[in-house]
Amino acid sequence: MAETKGNLMTYRPDIKLFDATIRDGGLVNDFRFSDEFIRRLYLANVRAGVEYMEFGYKASKELFSTEEFGKWKFCDEEDIRAIVGENDTDLKLAVMADVGRCDYKKDILPKEESVIDMIRIATYTHQMPAALEMINHCHELGYETTVNIMAVSASRDEDVETALQLVCESPVDVIYLVDSYGSLFPEQVRELTAKYCEYAEAAGKKVGVHMHNNQQLAFANTIEGIAHGASYADATMSGMGRGAGNCCMEQMLSFLKNPNYNLTPALRFVEKYIAEEREKGSVWGYDLPYMMTGALNRHPRAAIAFIKEKRSDYDRLYQDLLYEIS
Amino acid sequence: MAETKGNLMTYRPDIKLFDATIRDGGLVNDFRFSDEFIRRLYLANVRAGVEYMEFGYKASKELFSTEEFGKWKFCDEEDIRAIVGENDTDLKLAVMADVGRCDYKKDILPKEESVIDMIRIATYTHQMPAALEMINHCHELGYETTVNIMAVSASRDEDVETALQLVCESPVDVIYLVDSYGSLFPEQVRELTAKYCEYAEAAGKKVGVHMHNNQQLAFANTIEGIAHGASYADATMSGMGRGAGNCCMEQMLSFLKNPNYNLTPALRFVEKYIAEEREKGSVWGYDLPYMMTGALNRHPRAAIAFIKEKRSDYDRLYQDLLYEIS
Repeated sequence: MAETKGNLMTYRPDIKLFDATIRDGGLVNDFRFSDEFIRRLYLANVRAGVEYMEFGYKASKELFSTEEFGKWKFCDEEDIRAIVGENDTDLKLAVMADVGRCDYKKDILPKEESVIDMIRIATYTHQMPAALEMINHCHELGYETTVNIMAVSASRDEDVETALQLVCESPVDVIYLVDSYGSLFPEQVRELTAKYCEYAEAAGKKVGVHMHNNQQLAFANTIEGIAHGASYADATMSGMGRGAGNCCMEQMLSFLKNPNYNLTPALRFVEKYIAEEREKGSVWGYDLPYMMTGALNRHPRAAIAFIKEKRSDYDRLYQDLLYEIS
Repeated sequence: MAETKGNLMTYRPDIKLFDATIRDGGLVNDFRFSDEFIRRLYLANVRAGVEYMEFGYKASKELFSTEEFGKWKFCDEEDIRAIVGENDTDLKLAVMADVGRCDYKKDILPKEESVIDMIRIATYTHQMPAALEMINHCHELGYETTVNIMAVSASRDEDVETALQLVCESPVDVIYLVDSYGSLFPEQVRELTAKYCEYAEAAGKKVGVHMHNNQQLAFANTIEGIAHGASYADATMSGMGRGAGNCCMEQMLSFLKNPNYNLTPALRFVEKYIAEEREKGSVWGYDLPYMMTGALNRHPRAAIAFIKEKRSDYDRLYQDLLYEIS
């Protein structure tokens, strides 16, 4: 049997739940959430005992139009403060900044001027030098930082190892294993988490996991990841997120035995606000096309288009994916 | 790391896919499938390379009304033959017989008079003597047999061990680990499968897994079960089955690397016949109420009723389940 940290009856104080509903869910609705949704989500996270909440992206307004996307694509300081005030709670606030899509020197304020606690830096392995510069910059501004190394299932092992070495020499606090395509199987998650933890522990850092549900493995992979050493677990309300979506926050609050957690605020949020979001036409969650892109280790864009077009010729999509013409 | 049998790139010839769509799916629609659905499912399984297909239950007509349930609750020989003729294919046919709900001495014909290959005997641990009698009877009639020990997540370890000892002394061919409530986590599946395999291998028998999707773990638990020694994997088309449903056949055909398998017939079946079944009003699949009964290790009946009544007061259900009054 695999060695696991902790067990099913107790809890590990090092484990932190990280709500990514706005950021990953914003990829479904172009970040067009009502203020009421965001305010209620914030309160639900506070009451549920969730440790971190991500408000969205710090995207460049040079690259992305504020007409095309809602305000959580950009996360201006005043927009966050309109929801949280001074955030006089135990919930820490985060935003994500993508390497190459963010004017971080201009848009990220010094920590003492911001209500944000953590900057998450999302990068591909081929962007490591730029990612390291952002990590250093945000660290110097006074923030907690994570580095979210994306699409590792499609990266060479050697590149992932080099990336891990490099980030371990940086001041980053948390290194995320990100299954962007929802293509990892639990046995791969166990191996990769163990590898990430080996690097991270030697450097005094923590490991996080961010899983997608293309193969209905987001929850399984998240709990396997934490059982094998990860401390930060990303989840979203009802799994709201791009394509097949993410690990469900309700499942994590139900699974983890930390007495600080409370499932009720999440259930009530889902009953009203997630239901309204679905009624607005936002669609996410496991479906056959996502299974295919996940199993074939591809970006989900062909599956997202297939579902948007309300197609059901699954076999045609599969053949197209196999022969790369989709 | 856990020791696993096989790996993600090769295939194990001992693994058999078992389609349980009619039997577990029949619990959703009272076994009221069209003949066209059944015929197309049979052809899809033959073409996909699936090894076994379960037609339904051999239920007692004394206990269950033929007006209330469709014919696959009873699986009369002539009804199966009307679909498969002499079944001149490589697909083996199975039916399930529940201990205490079946007139097996009357209703199960000698093998030479039947097109059925395998009888699956479903039992709770407290029914073992009756189950053993059925196993012996069916074996003497000439059938392959499995014993499906239900609800082990709610059984005492000692009773499960005793049940395993007893079935290992019987002529049964396959011993099934059944997660009736969808409450097992992957680490428990690994441990239980290893235990089942220890007993089974010493007695020259095989182990099977039948998983439910209450916590979105049916696929994860199925692949963890086979990676840790099980040879028979139950699945249903699009996961059709009671409550949260089962492991999806499409996912298993995609995951397993046996060159005999072919995903296309399953995709085409889903596109037309599963879609029609859903249009008829059959509802199954992961939903919050099933997560709760799974996480609380309960029979899904309260969740099924909640969804049938189109309720959405999730927190009320959760509180009721916690305090046992639902």
